[in-house]
Amino acid sequence: MEAWFHWFDLIGVAVFAISGALVAHRKKLDGFGVIVLAAVTGIGGGTIRDVILDAPVFWLHNPSYLYSILGASLLTIFWLNKRGSMRKIIIESADALGLAFFVVMGVQKALDYGMPNITAVVMGVITGCFGGMIRDVLARSTPMVLKSELYATTCIFGGIVYTQCLNFDIAKEIAMIAGMLATLSLRAAAIKWRLSLHVFKYPN
Amino acid sequence: MEAWFHWFDLIGVAVFAISGALVAHRKKLDGFGVIVLAAVTGIGGGTIRDVILDAPVFWLHNPSYLYSILGASLLTIFWLNKRGSMRKIIIESADALGLAFFVVMGVQKALDYGMPNITAVVMGVITGCFGGMIRDVLARSTPMVLKSELYATTCIFGGIVYTQCLNFDIAKEIAMIAGMLATLSLRAAAIKWRLSLHVFKYPN
Amino acid sequence: MEAWFHWFDLIGVAVFAISGALVAHRKKLDGFGVIVLAAVTGIGGGTIRDVILDAPVFWLHNPSYLYSILGASLLTIFWLNKRGSMRKIIIESADALGLAFFVVMGVQKALDYGMPNITAVVMGVITGCFGGMIRDVLARSTPMVLKSELYATTCIFGGIVYTQCLNFDIAKEIAMIAGMLATLSLRAAAIKWRLSLHVFKYPN
Repeated sequence: MEAWFHWFDLIGVAVFAISGALVAHRKKLDGFGVIVLAAVTGIGGGTIRDVILDAPVFWLHNPSYLYSILGASLLTIFWLNKRGSMRKIIIESADALGLAFFVVMGVQKALDYGMPNITAVVMGVITGCFGGMIRDVLARSTPMVLKSELYATTCIFGGIVYTQCLNFDIAKEIAMIAGMLATLSLRAAAIKWRLSLHVFKYPN
Repeated sequence: MEAWFHWFDLIGVAVFAISGALVAHRKKLDGFGVIVLAAVTGIGGGTIRDVILDAPVFWLHNPSYLYSILGASLLTIFWLNKRGSMRKIIIESADALGLAFFVVMGVQKALDYGMPNITAVVMGVITGCFGGMIRDVLARSTPMVLKSELYATTCIFGGIVYTQCLNFDIAKEIAMIAGMLATLSLRAAAIKWRLSLHVFKYPN
Repeated sequence: MEAWFHWFDLIGVAVFAISGALVAHRKKLDGFGVIVLAAVTGIGGGTIRDVILDAPVFWLHNPSYLYSILGASLLTIFWLNKRGSMRKIIIESADALGLAFFVVMGVQKALDYGMPNITAVVMGVITGCFGGMIRDVLARSTPMVLKSELYATTCIFGGIVYTQCLNFDIAKEIAMIAGMLATLSLRAAAIKWRLSLHVFKYPN
């Protein structure tokens, strides 16, 4: 089980790293810009989570995460040089998959450290969204998490579903799948129907 | 006494959260953007302080801070939808009050962890100013702390007054009030007379 | 030896602080903006490194770093007011020197904490580049580390030279000098011949 988690985790990091490398491409950055953006997107959120939880930062003693970022960056570079672009649907699906996984992992890690439910959900959001937030700040875009269709809201939703499943004594594996499916499906719906959460009435 | 502190602290967080929500409104962000900006403004500075001090991050085990942010965000949303704006004087007063409180609390926490005076003052500045700094970076404004009238300077001044009072063996409660009044009055003077600290002579 | 290190370290912090103060001057910031940018550039990278390593943050118990930042800021202010500018060559040399020193110190600190080589190199990059990255984000410029000639690449190169020297059982002092010279000379070459690392073919 644990080994599975590690593989999933690596895939999540790689997927997020690709999204960072793509932003670097759009911003016409060069070699190291690609790797910096890939790295902060891939491991930034989890690093902030671990620092706040005062847990050992997950990639410190396990270089496989760094190799995974390097591999994902090179792959993206080769792909883009050959094809010129990536299908948007592929990127968004991969990103949503990574998001779903990161949220549940982030919530679980916070629970492992004895946090109350609401704090654990916040940690899930940090794990899922803060890497991309740093990426956007460095690339001088408006952070997607502040603007994009329900991006962070899906993290909150997935986190709540997961913690509530646990509260009802549902087996951890099933709760995880439920949390991920909840994140994934809300995100998919938000992208498909361009949902957003208007809370202010702006005079036009 | 300690219970008092906690209540003051919650009010400080709520006041700063409101300032974050207001920036989100000005930038025409939606639901989650409001909560993200409210949260980073309310607890960002204290989080950075605690992480650097290697202290347990203050909101981790105490969800009341997160509820306070949520409540302040909802209140701001309802208020703005009904009234359309907030009186600038109210916001600035609230912000100055929050600032005064955060600076003294930040200095005290650093002293509790055995830091020298100058480090403690730096921690006061971080607690008071860095939440708003992250808010401005995310909202893509020039950080107020870099531009606004003596914003950070008032924090330094308040912190120095507080640590010096303690050095002269003045009772902690009185030192705190002195530190807060120092911060508040310098900030009020800076806003009223548009003070600033020109150190460079720029050729016109 | 240790005392030497501390002096070198202080000089590195001061040099980076000057580069922060210069950016503040270019952006026409005032008093506190200068000190904030000087401080985050001088100690930002090392702070992030220490927080991730869960090491005591290096400037907490040793105020000399903060005084060094203050001194460097005042010096820059006086210099610029008198002369109006600094020779670019001086700044770039100082910056490269600071960089070389910070990278090797960062790698060494990570090794002291038992990190694998690749993680140690990442820590060297963080120590050398992330202070300047925060400076540029606050000053609303595109981070130099993402754009400038091989800036971060020189850090990686210097870090690899240093760790490889250690792997071949070369004495630590000589390995340090080799690592610094590697960083310095690649950086100098990159500036002189405007090297960069184009990984994407952009259609023109």
